[in-house]
Amino acid sequence: MNERMIKELQELLSPEQVSVNSTVLEQHAKDESHHPSHLPDVVVFPTCTEDVSRVLTWANENRVPVVPFGVGSGLEGQAIPYQGGISLDFQQMNHILEIRAEDMLVRVQPGVTRMQLNRELKKHGLFFSVDPGADATLGGMAATNASGTTSVRYGIMRDQVRDLEVVLVDGRVIRTGGKSAKSSSGYHLTGLFVGSEGTLGVFTELTLRLYGIPEATMSARASFPAISDAVNTAYAIMAAGIPVARLELVDARSIRQVNTYKGTTYPESATLFLEFHGNEAGLKQDIAFARELADEQQCTAFVFESESLGQAALWEARHHMAYAFMHGYPGRGMLTTDVCVPLSELTGAIAFAEEQLASTGMIGAIVGHVGDGNFHTLLMIDKTNPQEVEQAEKVNDYIVNYALERGGTCTGEHGVGIGKIKYQEKEHGTALDVMRSMKEMFDPQNILNPGKILPL
Amino acid sequence: MNERMIKELQELLSPEQVSVNSTVLEQHAKDESHHPSHLPDVVVFPTCTEDVSRVLTWANENRVPVVPFGVGSGLEGQAIPYQGGISLDFQQMNHILEIRAEDMLVRVQPGVTRMQLNRELKKHGLFFSVDPGADATLGGMAATNASGTTSVRYGIMRDQVRDLEVVLVDGRVIRTGGKSAKSSSGYHLTGLFVGSEGTLGVFTELTLRLYGIPEATMSARASFPAISDAVNTAYAIMAAGIPVARLELVDARSIRQVNTYKGTTYPESATLFLEFHGNEAGLKQDIAFARELADEQQCTAFVFESESLGQAALWEARHHMAYAFMHGYPGRGMLTTDVCVPLSELTGAIAFAEEQLASTGMIGAIVGHVGDGNFHTLLMIDKTNPQEVEQAEKVNDYIVNYALERGGTCTGEHGVGIGKIKYQEKEHGTALDVMRSMKEMFDPQNILNPGKILPL
Ligand SMILES: Cc1cc2nc3c(=O)[nH]c(=O)nc-3n(C[C@H](O)[C@H](O)[C@H](O)COP(=O)(O)OP(=O)(O)OC[C@H]3O[C@@H](n4cnc5c(N)ncnc54)[C@H](O)[C@@H]3O)c2cc1C
Ligand SMILES: Cc1cc2nc3c(=O)[nH]c(=O)nc-3n(C[C@H](O)[C@H](O)[C@H](O)COP(=O)(O)OP(=O)(O)OC[C@H]3O[C@@H](n4cnc5c(N)ncnc54)[C@H](O)[C@@H]3O)c2cc1C
Repeated sequence: MNERMIKELQELLSPEQVSVNSTVLEQHAKDESHHPSHLPDVVVFPTCTEDVSRVLTWANENRVPVVPFGVGSGLEGQAIPYQGGISLDFQQMNHILEIRAEDMLVRVQPGVTRMQLNRELKKHGLFFSVDPGADATLGGMAATNASGTTSVRYGIMRDQVRDLEVVLVDGRVIRTGGKSAKSSSGYHLTGLFVGSEGTLGVFTELTLRLYGIPEATMSARASFPAISDAVNTAYAIMAAGIPVARLELVDARSIRQVNTYKGTTYPESATLFLEFHGNEAGLKQDIAFARELADEQQCTAFVFESESLGQAALWEARHHMAYAFMHGYPGRGMLTTDVCVPLSELTGAIAFAEEQLASTGMIGAIVGHVGDGNFHTLLMIDKTNPQEVEQAEKVNDYIVNYALERGGTCTGEHGVGIGKIKYQEKEHGTALDVMRSMKEMFDPQNILNPGKILPL
Repeated sequence: MNERMIKELQELLSPEQVSVNSTVLEQHAKDESHHPSHLPDVVVFPTCTEDVSRVLTWANENRVPVVPFGVGSGLEGQAIPYQGGISLDFQQMNHILEIRAEDMLVRVQPGVTRMQLNRELKKHGLFFSVDPGADATLGGMAATNASGTTSVRYGIMRDQVRDLEVVLVDGRVIRTGGKSAKSSSGYHLTGLFVGSEGTLGVFTELTLRLYGIPEATMSARASFPAISDAVNTAYAIMAAGIPVARLELVDARSIRQVNTYKGTTYPESATLFLEFHGNEAGLKQDIAFARELADEQQCTAFVFESESLGQAALWEARHHMAYAFMHGYPGRGMLTTDVCVPLSELTGAIAFAEEQLASTGMIGAIVGHVGDGNFHTLLMIDKTNPQEVEQAEKVNDYIVNYALERGGTCTGEHGVGIGKIKYQEKEHGTALDVMRSMKEMFDPQNILNPGKILPL
């Protein structure tokens, strides 16, 4: 992009909304992954739908790449502008537009973050359920189809989005859904845009489903001698149909790391973090049943966190797990695997990942949303050491192939970005041709986050 | 289609799979709606994916329309071949291919019906949740994005489909999903095909999510002096976050009709049919709370059906409601509205529908999946009387517009077919252009169920 183009953009919006400041450019050159960084040519800060529409129309005419940017917490390089162009940062479109408490709906701009939203919703006795470890934006979460600890009960990001306002590459603005709980009208565009990582259109407004804060909440920690006991318990709980609200695996290394980082004193063995939502009487029965199943798997301690402070500490520990490792290994980067497998394959898949860690001797750990069959192998790598990077990528590769061969997916929640492009053919087969046609239809000049999701 | 073409089809498959018998043609000329019938030129009975692929390839080359056919229980003319051509009947592809009890998944051919499936699943302690009033095929239910009485708890058809095998118009076969509980890989084609009514591709296999039969189930009937009291109670139950498994409104006229048809003796006033799933202790507390809310709305009787026979009778009565009317008014056809509105608009919308019934004096009733904001006005019409048909269509029109103006949808679950085409522009606006492009991409010659969903 040349100076004339920057000037044109400044005239299109306003000079303050268009930055080529090198610090600003650098902030938009990376995400939280191990993937290499790359500078955009310019960062643009829209304040309304009309701004976005104007920028896209201009970019499309001038064949300039546009990469939407939330807070850059992505883990597969999604927001990194590898072909330069415009980084479209939504930090100024961060308003909660309407809380429809009676309809359990909220309408937000894409730059609102999940914590910002939940702080506001609490006043209404409501909450938004999806909770990735980072305080991501709702636009970014919708674009990657994020999920989290509560998805086992409340579903993933795609399940929460009722309506999107989307700006298409030629500047047209569409609405993909509505405000009713269900519909069989027209083609389901909402579900298609969710998870499209900015490659098909740009979200300027989201209408999201909310839930009432449950009458009673109970959290617990269950410790086990071996990780396989913990995984088997998780499986047994799911098979028994106990409606857990959260069911998280945290291995011994992770507990050790988080104890150091947060000053907690959790027993340093394989652990399940659990949560139950419901009415008091129902909870008690659910928990008693879960505990029985844990005991059958050699559970060494089943500890309740009935106070809200202890519960908050537990889930903060879980959410800060990745940061505990990053903090504990300064100078190292993190590569995290993200496969999801059918539940019956979970024990095997986690054992396989364990073997990879053991046989390579890499610094790492395993955590996971095991109620969904989704787990992460966190690998701490020296990014300046090509051998170590290669080794980590090989471990990732083995784990992905193990999952794909058993009907699983290369990414349960982090998305494709650039990191999972090489598995798209194997996972989707001929359907990949349809995805390519779809991309061509929505973005014929390939300017919307080019180079992401689809292999060339 | 000429004789040569029929001959070619017979050679492509086998003579027994291709019928021009007039009784067979007539069976495929209609669905269960009030929409006019139209004969196909030929009915083809595929037995495998390969058959479907061959037929589509041939039809695409010869520009012959293909309309998939389940059991023709659709309510908006979806399966009626208005442009003639091939009715592609899936009755021979009715095998349950694999029950993966450990993964709570089942793989079926599209001609399997929901009751057939549930009979088999029961042996495994599992059930498939979506239950339209008709014993529809799973292919047809996926194609219309059906839902039913349990959707308030377990979700709609789109929520249950993990993977589809789809034959594209040029004969290519794709898989849209996988076996894991969630994925962020590639574009979400599954959700797009669900609800596409045979206009984008033909399903030859479905992988569906299952649920464990709950530990305890309790059903109840709550009677009210006025329909508004029943609706307000439904709203209060949803707002309180009580996890009802079913929450159905049945008005006084419907109860009267079903008492006559089934020999039941339910009190003939506005009624909620409720069901609760969970553990015994939790249920009791949920029900006590629901009952309190009903009492606040002048509930005149709250009657439990704790025995499985009484429960079955209750839900059979609900499922046979439409048949009770059809049976009670022989010679008349049924037109049923199907709007879905945000919950806060439900009381108003149902009152509005009531007024329509009262002011026109039409024979009709109101029932609904009110936990989702979805209700039906059943109108019994003399299809040979154009004035009566016009009046019914006007009532439908008023109710749809009322819903659309309040953020609702013209169809909560029955789909668009030909009946809701005229509302697509108003409901979807500019997004309709995207849907048109999508149709062109998937079906450039417009042979897949032409004339459905999209206005020309
Ligand atoms: C410590 C840590 C823990 C994490 N834990 C989880 C987890 O548990 N579950 C999980 O799912 N993820 C997790 N993540 C990943 C991450 O938080 C998600 O990928 C997040 O959804 C991205 O949101 P963002 O606002 O950071 O978007 P960015 O990273 O800025 O962008 C992500 C993608 O979204 C696109 N995008 C952003 N805004 C828009 C818009 N308005 N319109 C269209 N496209 C847009 C971008 O172009 C890019 O392709 C974790 C990350 C970290 C660092
Ligand atoms: C008494 C009664 C009560 C009802 N109650 C409900 C209800 O509560 N909820 C609800 O949602 N619906 C309800 N319906 C409507 C009806 O049952 C649904 O629309 C059903 O989902 C259609 O299934 P089918 O097998 O009859 O399909 P058909 O009517 O034969 O076809 C419906 C559509 O699906 C397409 N199709 C069929 N098979 C395939 C395939 N293999 N691949 C691609 N496309 C295919 C057809 O082309 C057509 O467009 C009710 C109907 C009746 C008669």
